Amino acid sequence: MHITVEKTIQSFADVAPPAVILAAGEGHRLNGLNGGAPKPLTAVLGLTLLERAVLSCKEVGVMEFFVVIGYHADKMIPYLNALGQRLSVSIKPVENPNWREGNGSSALSAAPYIRSPFFLLMCDHLFDPAILRLLLTAGKNTTDCLLAVDRHPDHVFELDDATKVILDGDVITEIGKREASFDAVDTGLFFCQPTLFEALEVARDKGEHSLSAGFMGLIRNREFRAVTIGERFWFDVDTPKSLNLATKALLQSLSKPNEDGFIAHYLNRPVSRRISKILIRTPVSPNGISLLSFAGCIIGAVMFYPGGYIWTILAGLVIQLSSIVDGCDGEVARLRFQSSKFGGWFDTILDRYGDTAVVAGVSFGYWLTHPHATVWLGAIFTLTGFIMASYVKKEFMIRYQSNPPGGLLGKLIKRDLRIFVIMLGALANRPYESMLLVGLLSHVGIGWMLLKGHKQMNLQRQRS
Amino acid sequence: MHITVEKTIQSFADVAPPAVILAAGEGHRLNGLNGGAPKPLTAVLGLTLLERAVLSCKEVGVMEFFVVIGYHADKMIPYLNALGQRLSVSIKPVENPNWREGNGSSALSAAPYIRSPFFLLMCDHLFDPAILRLLLTAGKNTTDCLLAVDRHPDHVFELDDATKVILDGDVITEIGKREASFDAVDTGLFFCQPTLFEALEVARDKGEHSLSAGFMGLIRNREFRAVTIGERFWFDVDTPKSLNLATKALLQSLSKPNEDGFIAHYLNRPVSRRISKILIRTPVSPNGISLLSFAGCIIGAVMFYPGGYIWTILAGLVIQLSSIVDGCDGEVARLRFQSSKFGGWFDTILDRYGDTAVVAGVSFGYWLTHPHATVWLGAIFTLTGFIMASYVKKEFMIRYQSNPPGGLLGKLIKRDLRIFVIMLGALANRPYESMLLVGLLSHVGIGWMLLKGHKQMNLQRQRS
Repeated sequence: MHITVEKTIQSFADVAPPAVILAAGEGHRLNGLNGGAPKPLTAVLGLTLLERAVLSCKEVGVMEFFVVIGYHADKMIPYLNALGQRLSVSIKPVENPNWREGNGSSALSAAPYIRSPFFLLMCDHLFDPAILRLLLTAGKNTTDCLLAVDRHPDHVFELDDATKVILDGDVITEIGKREASFDAVDTGLFFCQPTLFEALEVARDKGEHSLSAGFMGLIRNREFRAVTIGERFWFDVDTPKSLNLATKALLQSLSKPNEDGFIAHYLNRPVSRRISKILIRTPVSPNGISLLSFAGCIIGAVMFYPGGYIWTILAGLVIQLSSIVDGCDGEVARLRFQSSKFGGWFDTILDRYGDTAVVAGVSFGYWLTHPHATVWLGAIFTLTGFIMASYVKKEFMIRYQSNPPGGLLGKLIKRDLRIFVIMLGALANRPYESMLLVGLLSHVGIGWMLLKGHKQMNLQRQRS
Repeated sequence: MHITVEKTIQSFADVAPPAVILAAGEGHRLNGLNGGAPKPLTAVLGLTLLERAVLSCKEVGVMEFFVVIGYHADKMIPYLNALGQRLSVSIKPVENPNWREGNGSSALSAAPYIRSPFFLLMCDHLFDPAILRLLLTAGKNTTDCLLAVDRHPDHVFELDDATKVILDGDVITEIGKREASFDAVDTGLFFCQPTLFEALEVARDKGEHSLSAGFMGLIRNREFRAVTIGERFWFDVDTPKSLNLATKALLQSLSKPNEDGFIAHYLNRPVSRRISKILIRTPVSPNGISLLSFAGCIIGAVMFYPGGYIWTILAGLVIQLSSIVDGCDGEVARLRFQSSKFGGWFDTILDRYGDTAVVAGVSFGYWLTHPHATVWLGAIFTLTGFIMASYVKKEFMIRYQSNPPGGLLGKLIKRDLRIFVIMLGALANRPYESMLLVGLLSHVGIGWMLLKGHKQMNLQRQRS
């Protein structure tokens, strides 16, 4: 049957607003860590803070940037020009000679360039780009300024130093650092209207140069609203300690609790994150890592062929290691904003070929001591289960245009568990039997998904 | 990686217009074929003409029908009431005592019920529901009445009897049966505004009772436009001969020239259509046919096990027959308007399991005379090629949100060819070797798709 998958609208670029990034401050608390470079140029897992901010915006389609600079403007301007060229975006350096007055003064210096709604962000904040998408969506239905807020103050490092807000519904009624009781924490990510500049001018004329002072004007008119970020990741980097923690939190944010199987979540990710932290410093590409993991899997599979116990143990450990490294391609891609459709597709295809090699290797090793055709029929049975467990899910996504049924069984027919069980079997000198076991489990999972799909069809019929 | 496939908007029902179906005439030219039943109740491949019209509209979301009846209204009313209940749609029988005056008079009798744009169709036309979708899309941008027209008069049976139109761009400037030179043929499928009824009233007051006379009023105001149907299927059923041809044409329209492989198109479809013509008269469901074809494939696969030449030939023929029957599930589903997401999913999963059985059977038969492990490694190599050729396409559709690369190689890695080549190999007593050959071809196709995907990624990068 022919399916035309609806084209995803990816023309965000047509409508995405520009972004103003405040990068003027000295960031003296980070001094010394960076060889005296300005704070925006501090590297976190291979990319500078500023580069991360720009790339995060680019992920939601922003192509035009106004970066307000002050401290070490001489060093910043050539960096920004080169960065714009390298990332194929427009970056306009905006110098604020009065940057020491406060961040309101810096924001105001972007005013001459802005005629439409815009993102406003601090260069020293790491965050999940999905937060910008939340702001963009919320911004479509309002002419108020919006601030992304975190309702979990326990998540916030150096809370004393954070800016807090008090809310009335989603309307912000107070903003400041010294609020003793508050509803949420300011993440430093804004979606603003040009009216902000008028409010900043009013504050400036009163001698107030902080961003918060500007927002006070909007608060008085109830034109400043909060958008809650839920569990999404953000981190304010101010001190060496927070830089350290931010790096850890960024690595942590690479986990995909909803998608990873149990072994991936509890065993593979903690290790693969550590490996990714090293790989990020090398020039190896995410697709290169996929190939590396695949090569490991093939080597492990071939090591099953000789059939002896020592080889079997080693083979099991090698395929488990390759399964761990298999998580690094996506991690490095996300850390470098290099995720691609091809990369995801390539990785999943290599995984299936890797499974094939493991089944062939384990079966060959077993066949040496059990030379019956049934060994190979078992291999074919298992291999079909392995590949079909993924295939059935993909077909489900295409036919039903929604994610396949999850649940416990959904987690048990993933590759992380297959490889882990075969590795355990190898340690016990029973790789073939353990392979049959996960093969059988895969077929059970396939049957279960078919039942779920059938049920869903009947439900839809009843509704219509 | 986690992919959220965009949900297809399927809420046509919210916006779909009602349909007026003209079913008042006597259809005397069909008399005798149907035991004297009124023409709308003439059966074509298991469903009456009227049922086909209603189900075709339902496919694009129409849930409210006004069926104008005249001839044998006493027989039609209970039929329509039962039909509405069975198909879960609202069908209002509208009696036109003056039906003999003309089809304009019949259309006009639906006027009291219609306040919004509506489909207008003749009950004796078979057509591809996609034409209604074309009208609906075109109707969103105009307040004119629309007529679906066929620009290929050579496709039209009994052209003399057809209504023709003359066009100025897409504006209809003449309509009638006697035009000697014309631009297109009237398919009898309209998307109308309630203004049509005013035009029909004006014509009626002048003693004109045909639909064409009503449309003349719209033509004078240039408020009547044509929508070209391209190569889409339609057929006007008036005589026993045209009924016969329409049945053939409807069966023919089940082919999917863009999706079917070469063997499916030139060999399997012509046979499967004949089988579907028989199956449509039985109560067996499309999913039942999928299971039937799967059972045939398993039986054929098992027949390879004994390994003798006679068994091999028989096995080859059985799997080829099952591959032919594999086309019938979709055909019967489309003929009965029973296509379902689950059905398509179920069918494709059974196909992959069928492939597994064939590979196991052929390899076992070969292994009896060639007892080497390499026979099974070849089996594993082939099986991965077979399943992955489909898997890689599905992954492509999900990642790129578009159809996978087509072309010659795309056609050569489909199941129809795999099974056919293995059957040919079986006839030549070389099923294993031919299986390896198509296995190799599958891997080449997979590599080719990967290259295409990689190229597409690079193109997209360059554009961004």
